[in-house]
Amino acid sequence: MDAIALRRGEHTPIRIQTPKPTPKSGEALVRTLRVGVDGTDIEVLAGEHGGFPPGEDHLVLGHEAVGIVANPNDTDLEEGTVVVPTIRRPHPDGRTAPQHLDQLDMAPMDTVVERGIAGAHGFMAEYFTSEEKYLVPIPDDLADVGFLVEPITITEKAVEHAVASRSAFDWRPESALVLGNGPLGLLTTAMFATGERFSDVYCLGRRDRPDLTIDMVESLGATYIDSRETPVSEISAAHRPMDLVYEATGYARHAFDGLDAVAPAGVLALLGVPTDWPFEIDGGRLHREAVLGNKAVVGSVNADRNHFRAAVRTLDRLPAWVIDDLVTGVSPHTDAEPAFVTDDDASIKTAVEFHRV
Amino acid sequence: MDAIALRRGEHTPIRIQTPKPTPKSGEALVRTLRVGVDGTDIEVLAGEHGGFPPGEDHLVLGHEAVGIVANPNDTDLEEGTVVVPTIRRPHPDGRTAPQHLDQLDMAPMDTVVERGIAGAHGFMAEYFTSEEKYLVPIPDDLADVGFLVEPITITEKAVEHAVASRSAFDWRPESALVLGNGPLGLLTTAMFATGERFSDVYCLGRRDRPDLTIDMVESLGATYIDSRETPVSEISAAHRPMDLVYEATGYARHAFDGLDAVAPAGVLALLGVPTDWPFEIDGGRLHREAVLGNKAVVGSVNADRNHFRAAVRTLDRLPAWVIDDLVTGVSPHTDAEPAFVTDDDASIKTAVEFHRV
Repeated sequence: MDAIALRRGEHTPIRIQTPKPTPKSGEALVRTLRVGVDGTDIEVLAGEHGGFPPGEDHLVLGHEAVGIVANPNDTDLEEGTVVVPTIRRPHPDGRTAPQHLDQLDMAPMDTVVERGIAGAHGFMAEYFTSEEKYLVPIPDDLADVGFLVEPITITEKAVEHAVASRSAFDWRPESALVLGNGPLGLLTTAMFATGERFSDVYCLGRRDRPDLTIDMVESLGATYIDSRETPVSEISAAHRPMDLVYEATGYARHAFDGLDAVAPAGVLALLGVPTDWPFEIDGGRLHREAVLGNKAVVGSVNADRNHFRAAVRTLDRLPAWVIDDLVTGVSPHTDAEPAFVTDDDASIKTAVEFHRV
Repeated sequence: MDAIALRRGEHTPIRIQTPKPTPKSGEALVRTLRVGVDGTDIEVLAGEHGGFPPGEDHLVLGHEAVGIVANPNDTDLEEGTVVVPTIRRPHPDGRTAPQHLDQLDMAPMDTVVERGIAGAHGFMAEYFTSEEKYLVPIPDDLADVGFLVEPITITEKAVEHAVASRSAFDWRPESALVLGNGPLGLLTTAMFATGERFSDVYCLGRRDRPDLTIDMVESLGATYIDSRETPVSEISAAHRPMDLVYEATGYARHAFDGLDAVAPAGVLALLGVPTDWPFEIDGGRLHREAVLGNKAVVGSVNADRNHFRAAVRTLDRLPAWVIDDLVTGVSPHTDAEPAFVTDDDASIKTAVEFHRV
C-alpha cells in the first residue's frame, strides 16, 4: 500500500510502498480517510522534533487521522465505524510507569512513543492498525472533518489544565488572547469565540490585510492584533489584561512576554515546541509579577482519550462556515505535496486524503 | 501607646508613640501579643516593596500578628479570644472589584492595601483594630506561637494552588524541593516533611556546616542540598526530578532554573518578590521543556481566611521541637531591634512581643 514518509537524512515527505498491516489480537485494521498536517509535522520534517522508529530508515508521517474500521478483528469495534486514533503509545520496551498507562499524555516523553512523530509510524498510509483503546469512535457525519479532532484535543487539554490551575478560587474569566493565527491558533480562536467560557477574544498575528486568517478572526467576532503594531508585552495596556493567554506560536519569547499580557489571577498556556534559543529577559520583574499577580503558567502537550471525546463534541458544535474557511486544501495521497506547503497565504489547514468518505 | 514603625526616608524600624485606636462599628480592639518578622518586612524597610499609607509620614510595621480580643465592641467576638488578623483589606477608595471582596488574596495588587506592608498600618503596636471578618480565632494554647499562622498561610495557599494546577489528572506527588532555608523555607520544609503529601523532601541553602538550619532540615528527615555544590539546574540529575519545587528565596534565577528541577507533570510554586533583574536564559529550551514535560508554574501571594484556618490546623500538628528550634528569638517591643537582624546565623524566626500571653 501507499504511505507518506520521511526518510532518514531527508527533509521532504515522499510516497513509499509498505506492506498493508495485519492487526494483532486486540487491534483493529483502519482504512484511512484523511490525515491533517500541522506545525509538528513541519518540525518533524525539519528534524527539529520527534524521531524515527528504532532500526527503521523511515518514519511514516501523520498524527491527525480519521479512518473507518475495515476489520474489527477480535475487538468490540464494528466494521464501518468512523474512528480517530490517539497518538501516544506505551514505550515498546516497557519503561512506561504503571500510573501513566491510563494517562499517556502526562507521561514523561522518554517513556512513550508518538505515532507519526517520535519512535512509531504514523497514520499517513492507506491502512493502519491500532489497539482498540486508542481508537475513539466519532459520528459518521464528521468523517470528512474528523482529522480536526486531534488538533482540537490539544486545546481541550490545555484549557482543561489552565482552568484547573485556577480552580482553587472563584475564577471568572472573560477575556482570552490566542498568540498565533496558524491552524491551531485559528481553531482555538474559533473554539473560544463560539464557546461559552470567554466573552472577549483576541488573536495575535503578523500578516497584512487583506488576509484569510484576519477575515476569519473578525468574522468570529474576535479582535485581531498585529504584533508588529502591538507587541505582546503592550497588549495589556493597549487592549486589556487577559484572563487566559494561549501561546500557539512556538516563538519562545512569547512564553515570557506572554506573562505581561496575563491579568492578575490569570493563566498562560504554553503549546509551542521551540528549539534552544538563549535571550535576555527581565527575570526579576517577571518573577515578581507572577507572584504579586497570582499568575499561573501551564505547559501542555498531547491529549488523552477524554480530550478526544470532548473534541468530538466541540467539532460537532463549531459552525459549518468555520470549518469550511479553515480547511483550505485536501490533497490526494498520490499528490500530497501541496498539503505540506506552509508559506502560502491562501492556505490555512490542509490534509492528505487516502480514501474517500 | 507604643508602635514599631518605619518613617519615610529611613530604613530602620523605630519606636513611636501613637494614639491607642478606637474600634469603629464592626471592628474589635485587639491587644497585641506577638508579631513575627519576615523577609517582606526587611524588603519594606529597604524600600523595595510596599508603601506608606497616603498622607502619612510613617508605616506601622508588622503583618504576622497574634493578639487577644480586648474589646469586642459590637462584633460577635468575645473578650479574651485569641485571634490572628488577615493582611489584605479592600482599597479605601472603593476600587476593589466585587468578585474580589471575598477573596482579597486573588485581587490585583492596586485594588487592595496590605496592613504593615502597603498602604495601611500594620500590627506592631500595643493594640490594633480590625473588622471581625478579618480576624481568625485560634486555640488559646497557640497564643504564644500564633504569629507563625500567617507565614504558614503563605504555604497553605501556594500548595493549594500548586495541587489545583495538577488536578486535571491523577497526580501522585512524592518529592518536594524547597528552595531556601530562611524562615519560610524551613517552615515549609517542616510542613512537607511532617505532612502526608510528600515522602521525599529536600531543602536547598548555601550555608556551611555546622548550621542550625541544616541541622533542622536533617532532623526533619529531609535532605539538605548546598546550592554551591549542586546548582538548582543539576538537582534533577544529582537527586531526582521533583514533583513540587517551592521557591522561597526571592532569587529570580530560581524562577527559571527551578523549572529544570521540576519532574514531568510537576509544578513550580513561586513565592519570592525580587526587584528588576535582567539576565539571559535559554528561553527556547525552558519553553520546550515546560510544554513537553506538561509542567506548571504558579505564582502565589498573600492568603485568604480559609488558608488561615488551614494554617491553624497545621501549626497545631507541627512537632513542638520544630517550633522550639524555629523560633530563635522573641524581643520585647521596647527593645525590638534584635528581631530585625537578618545576618545572624544563630537566628531563624524572630518576633516582637507587645504583651505577655
